[in-house]
Amino acid sequence: MEEAARLAEAARELQEAAAALNSRTGSEEQSLRQRALALESDFRRVQSSLGSAAKKKSGSAAGGGFDPKIAEKVDEELYRARCIINDGDVASLLPSKSHGRFLKMFLGPINVRATRKEVQLKVKEEYNSYRDRTAFIFLVFPSTLLMLRSWAWEGCFPALPVQLYQAWLLYLYTTLALRENILRVNGSDIRPWWIYHHYCAMLMALISLTWEIKGQPDCAYKQRGVQLFLVWAMMQGVAMLLQNRYQRQRLYTRIALGKAKRMDVVWGETAGVDGQLWLLCPVLFILQGFEAFVGLLLLRTAFAGVIREWQVIVCGILLVLMAIGNFSNTLQTLMVKSRFKAKMKRTKSKQDL
Amino acid sequence: MEEAARLAEAARELQEAAAALNSRTGSEEQSLRQRALALESDFRRVQSSLGSAAKKKSGSAAGGGFDPKIAEKVDEELYRARCIINDGDVASLLPSKSHGRFLKMFLGPINVRATRKEVQLKVKEEYNSYRDRTAFIFLVFPSTLLMLRSWAWEGCFPALPVQLYQAWLLYLYTTLALRENILRVNGSDIRPWWIYHHYCAMLMALISLTWEIKGQPDCAYKQRGVQLFLVWAMMQGVAMLLQNRYQRQRLYTRIALGKAKRMDVVWGETAGVDGQLWLLCPVLFILQGFEAFVGLLLLRTAFAGVIREWQVIVCGILLVLMAIGNFSNTLQTLMVKSRFKAKMKRTKSKQDL
Repeated sequence: MEEAARLAEAARELQEAAAALNSRTGSEEQSLRQRALALESDFRRVQSSLGSAAKKKSGSAAGGGFDPKIAEKVDEELYRARCIINDGDVASLLPSKSHGRFLKMFLGPINVRATRKEVQLKVKEEYNSYRDRTAFIFLVFPSTLLMLRSWAWEGCFPALPVQLYQAWLLYLYTTLALRENILRVNGSDIRPWWIYHHYCAMLMALISLTWEIKGQPDCAYKQRGVQLFLVWAMMQGVAMLLQNRYQRQRLYTRIALGKAKRMDVVWGETAGVDGQLWLLCPVLFILQGFEAFVGLLLLRTAFAGVIREWQVIVCGILLVLMAIGNFSNTLQTLMVKSRFKAKMKRTKSKQDL
Repeated sequence: MEEAARLAEAARELQEAAAALNSRTGSEEQSLRQRALALESDFRRVQSSLGSAAKKKSGSAAGGGFDPKIAEKVDEELYRARCIINDGDVASLLPSKSHGRFLKMFLGPINVRATRKEVQLKVKEEYNSYRDRTAFIFLVFPSTLLMLRSWAWEGCFPALPVQLYQAWLLYLYTTLALRENILRVNGSDIRPWWIYHHYCAMLMALISLTWEIKGQPDCAYKQRGVQLFLVWAMMQGVAMLLQNRYQRQRLYTRIALGKAKRMDVVWGETAGVDGQLWLLCPVLFILQGFEAFVGLLLLRTAFAGVIREWQVIVCGILLVLMAIGNFSNTLQTLMVKSRFKAKMKRTKSKQDL
C-alpha cells in the first residue's frame, strides 16, 4: 500500500517535471525561431538591395559607388550564412514547407519532419539505397519476363506474372512519391516535376492492372504493347542505376564543396560530373525518345482497332506526356548547369586579369 | 559589406544557441526518460508481487495477512499512476512501439511519432472524421452502382465504374492501414487484427482490379460475384457509420471516466454503450455471416466452372478468412467486456455487503 502511494507520488512528480521541461523548451525554441525569422528577412532585404544596386549600375554606366567585386563577396558571405542556417540545428525551428495534398491524403495530419539533422540525413541515405535496390529489380524483373516469353512461354505472356510486375510498379511509384514528398518536407530541393512524374507513373501502373492481357489467338500481335513496355522498363532500370551512381558521387562532391544543402535530392540531371554526364545525357535522351515512341505505338494500336480499350489510349497519352516532361526538365537542368558554368568561367577569367 | 558580415555573425550565433538548446534539452530528456523507465519497472514489480500474493491467498485459505480490499485499492492506485505516465507529457519520452514493417516499407525510416499530446489527439480526431467521410462514400458509391445497373445499364455493369470503385477501395484500405499503424506508434491500443484485416482487404482490392468484368452474353450470371460484393460493401458502409458513432461516444465516455488512454482506437467492439451495443452486435454478426456467404458463393462459381479465374478463388478465400477473423475478434472483445462487467458487479455487491 505504502509502496503504491510512493509510486503514484513519483509518477506525479515525473509528470510535472516533464511538463515543465516541455513548456520551457517550447518557449526557448519560440524565441530562437523569432530570431531566425528576423535574420531570414534581413537576408532577403540585403539580397534585394544588392540586386537593385546591380541593376542601377548596368542601367547607367556611371552608377554611384557600386563595385561588382564587393557585391560578389557580399553575395558569397550571404550564401555561406544561409547555409549555416539551413543546414544546422536552426533549420528544424524554421517553419517547414507545407506537407502537400499527397502526404495528407495518405497519412493524415501527422508531421513527418525530422527535427534532428542526423535523422534527416539517415532518411536521405535510406532513400538513395532504396533507389539502388529498386533499380536492380527494375532491371531484373522485366528482363526475366522477356526472356521467359521467348524461351518458356512460346511468345505469349501469361497474365499473372505481368500483373505481379504491374502491382509492384504501383507499389514502387507510390512509395517513391511518398518518400520524395517526405524528403521535400525535410528540406530537399527536389524538382517538383519528378514527383509529378511519379504520380503519372502510379496512375499508369493502376490502369495497366485493369488492362486485360489478351492470350491466343494472335497473342504476339496483341501483346506488342506489353512487350514494348517491358523493354522500356528494362532501359529505365539501366538509366536508374547510372543516375543513382552519378547522383551520389555528385552529391558527395557538392557537399564537400559546400555548395549543396545535404538534403538535396539531385535527381539525375541537376549537377554534373562532366565525364559521366556525357554518358548519362545521351542515355536519358534515348530513353525519353523511346518512352514517347512506346506511347505513340500504343495510341496507334488503339486507333488502328487492334486493341480497342480506353486503358491503351490513356497509357499511351500518359507515356507521351511523361516523355515530354522529362525531356523539358532535363533540358532546363542542363541549361541551368551551363549558365552556372559560364558564370564560373567569367569569374575565373576576371580573377586571372 | 558590413551589413553582410554582421548578418553572417548573427547566423553563427544563432546556430550556436540552437545547438546548445538542442544538446541541453536532449540531456534533460535523457534523465527524465531514465526516471520514467525506473518507475515503469517499479510498477511491474509491485504488480507482480501483488499477483503472487493473491495466488498464495487462494492456494491456502489461511494466507498470511493478505487483504483483498487493500489489494484492490493498490491496484487502482497503480492504474491511476500509470494513466498519468501514459497520458501525460512523459509518454513522449518513453520508447515508442516499433514502427513495424508496413510503415517502413511505405515511408522508410522516418519517425511518425508526435511528441506533443495535442498533436497525437489531433491525429486521432482526424482519423475518426476520415472514417466518417469514407463510411459515407462506402455507402453511396456501391449503392449508386447497383441502382444504375438496374435502371440505366440494363442488368450489366460496364467495367470502368466498377474498376474505379475497386481502385478507390485499394486507396482507402492502404490509407487506413497506414493511419492505423501511425496511431499504433503514437500509443493507440488498436487490436492488431483490424490492421491485418486491412492488409487482406488491400490485397483483395488489388486482385479484384485484375479481375476481368465479363460482359455479354449472360452478364447477369457472370457478374453475380461483383453484384454480391457491392451489396456486401453497402452493408459494410452502414455498419461503419454505426460503429463510428458508437465508438466516438464510447471513447468520450471512457475518457471522461478516466478509463482509457485517449489514443485508444476503439474499433467497433472494444467497449459498450449497452443500449447501442444490442443494435451494433447483430448488425456486425449479420455482416460477417454475409461476408463469409459471399466468399463461399465466389468459391462455388469458381469451382462450378462459370468463371474459372484464380482471382475469384483467392478473393473467395480472403473473404471467408476475413469473416472468420472478424467474428472471432468481435467475440473475444465481447467476452473481455462481459468479464469486466462481472468483475465490476462483484466489486459492487461486496461494497453493498
